[in-house]
Amino acid sequence: MQENKIGKQTFVFHNEPNIIGAAAVVGKKEGQGPMSKWFDVILKEDTYGEKTWEKSESKILKKAILLALQNSGKTKEELDTILSGDLINQLMSSSFMARDLQIPFLGLYGACSTMTESLILGAVLIDGGYAKNIVAAASSHYCTAERQFRMPLEHGNQRPPSAQWTVTGAGSMILSNQIRDGEQMIGGEPAKNLVVTHATVGKIVDAGIKDANQMGAAMAPATVDTIFQHLKDTGREASYYDVILSGDLGIVGKQIVIDLLKKENINLDAVYDDCGVMIFNKDQDVHSGGSGCGCSASIFSGHIFKEMRQGKIKKALLISTGALLSTISSQQGESIPGIAHAVAVEGR
Amino acid sequence: MQENKIGKQTFVFHNEPNIIGAAAVVGKKEGQGPMSKWFDVILKEDTYGEKTWEKSESKILKKAILLALQNSGKTKEELDTILSGDLINQLMSSSFMARDLQIPFLGLYGACSTMTESLILGAVLIDGGYAKNIVAAASSHYCTAERQFRMPLEHGNQRPPSAQWTVTGAGSMILSNQIRDGEQMIGGEPAKNLVVTHATVGKIVDAGIKDANQMGAAMAPATVDTIFQHLKDTGREASYYDVILSGDLGIVGKQIVIDLLKKENINLDAVYDDCGVMIFNKDQDVHSGGSGCGCSASIFSGHIFKEMRQGKIKKALLISTGALLSTISSQQGESIPGIAHAVAVEGR
Repeated sequence: MQENKIGKQTFVFHNEPNIIGAAAVVGKKEGQGPMSKWFDVILKEDTYGEKTWEKSESKILKKAILLALQNSGKTKEELDTILSGDLINQLMSSSFMARDLQIPFLGLYGACSTMTESLILGAVLIDGGYAKNIVAAASSHYCTAERQFRMPLEHGNQRPPSAQWTVTGAGSMILSNQIRDGEQMIGGEPAKNLVVTHATVGKIVDAGIKDANQMGAAMAPATVDTIFQHLKDTGREASYYDVILSGDLGIVGKQIVIDLLKKENINLDAVYDDCGVMIFNKDQDVHSGGSGCGCSASIFSGHIFKEMRQGKIKKALLISTGALLSTISSQQGESIPGIAHAVAVEGR
Repeated sequence: MQENKIGKQTFVFHNEPNIIGAAAVVGKKEGQGPMSKWFDVILKEDTYGEKTWEKSESKILKKAILLALQNSGKTKEELDTILSGDLINQLMSSSFMARDLQIPFLGLYGACSTMTESLILGAVLIDGGYAKNIVAAASSHYCTAERQFRMPLEHGNQRPPSAQWTVTGAGSMILSNQIRDGEQMIGGEPAKNLVVTHATVGKIVDAGIKDANQMGAAMAPATVDTIFQHLKDTGREASYYDVILSGDLGIVGKQIVIDLLKKENINLDAVYDDCGVMIFNKDQDVHSGGSGCGCSASIFSGHIFKEMRQGKIKKALLISTGALLSTISSQQGESIPGIAHAVAVEGR
């Protein structure tokens, strides 16, 4: 049997699963931010024509999957499995999307780390020969998350400066055991093929933080743990990557990651950014930045996917980051467990 | 690349991941039922010494994992990843278990189908060479489920005859790329080695049922779909298996499965049973039977695992079954999507 693991926590994908299609669908506010031009669809209004926020989110996720599929040149019938998750109790967005699409479904919950969780398991299924074409996806919605985790929107409660704004959006990627049929041209050049080369499964790190408005700080230590482990397992320097992106630590959490890694003599400055910091402008009144599964999902499926296809980014490491709290665990006085999974993607 | 898929929805595990350890921990009521002698631990009282039901459930899950590990002859340090899920919002039981154990963690949500979801992905990771030792687990607790999905326990509401009783319990299995170190003797005979040979990933089937007290009926069509697809993909007759077990359809759902398959000329009578029917006696006042992730998890990790080790059961097909509803989706008038995943296990 071939060994596909190196170090303590890292998978190696020797068959290099291809990311042959991707799409990002986001809400109005996200479409007014600096990443605007990279999104495939920007909603005119966040209900997306549905009567409930949960159904809106499910429709956004479905749209991202169908667009990624179209973009990949594959048909729905060629898909083996959907791997997807979201923040809503019992994965309502993903479950109802999968009911509509009628494709075998594996539901995942990793809070906001879900995009890399679905990418990792999707890459495993392709790389190992268990599937030919896979959907890896994740979504979130400001209004479903606020209702479920915080206050009714109508309450209009104040948010501290460390609070983050849940991204309304979904990202989806199609992973395949073959490269995309037919060469695509981008700006007069043949588009690069994207492949998943490595993945590092994170373990839970609990920094003891109990304040649900300090998610960035709660998740930062898990992020550092996973970056550190990834570099150790692969024997790479941070500078191996053109871009290292954490999921949704926001302004506060991003700085903590930089500081903590500096102590380990790892300098990320040149290549590191955080999707939660990138997705909104400072004047959009989102305090510490964006959050939610849809944050890293839409940035990677939009901006990073397209830049890599153009060859402008060659090597990227995505570390989606999750805070595994619930309203019940908070009420019971528990601190917030953080987790982060890393996926390495390269252009060929 | 080796093809590890047959038919439309079925994985083949050519390297045959070994189930080298298993354990089932259940509550007091489950311990008074007909499966009593097969469980590894029966709690004296369902709080398990914790102050909240959620923490009790998390402790039950952790206990099942640690016992399975002990049973497998491996150490915590040899484990690569934990795959686990439960019914509590944001997987509180699994997340806090994984925080305590400090092992890389992938959270899964498939409602009561979670035991086979974790077994499938665990088998993929072992079979594909991505891990050497994996935990696949799932849990549920009557009191956490009632509080979250139904009524406060203190309310003492009446339950219709079709309602099921959520099992307090957890099951855990250790999957490994090697057989168990050292031969074990059971009843004077060397214990059989258990291997996972196939798995069928289910798609969602929604029968249009909206009554949350009709879970068995809501999940039965998905169960039938997955059994049918599994037999078709593998080219097997139902009689290939000594035992075919659905997860938690209860008395009502079990009969629907038998009836629906008869229409397709598939006769399951001789080999088929349902974990939800098996786990309680009729006089235990549980109406249609047991339910919850912990139902099929504890029956398989207890009864079936031990009977297979003794060679009394040679070939088993477990189909854990999930109802992917949430309280929100019900309030929004949605019907209950069902899903079922199948895993084939054989003694060698």
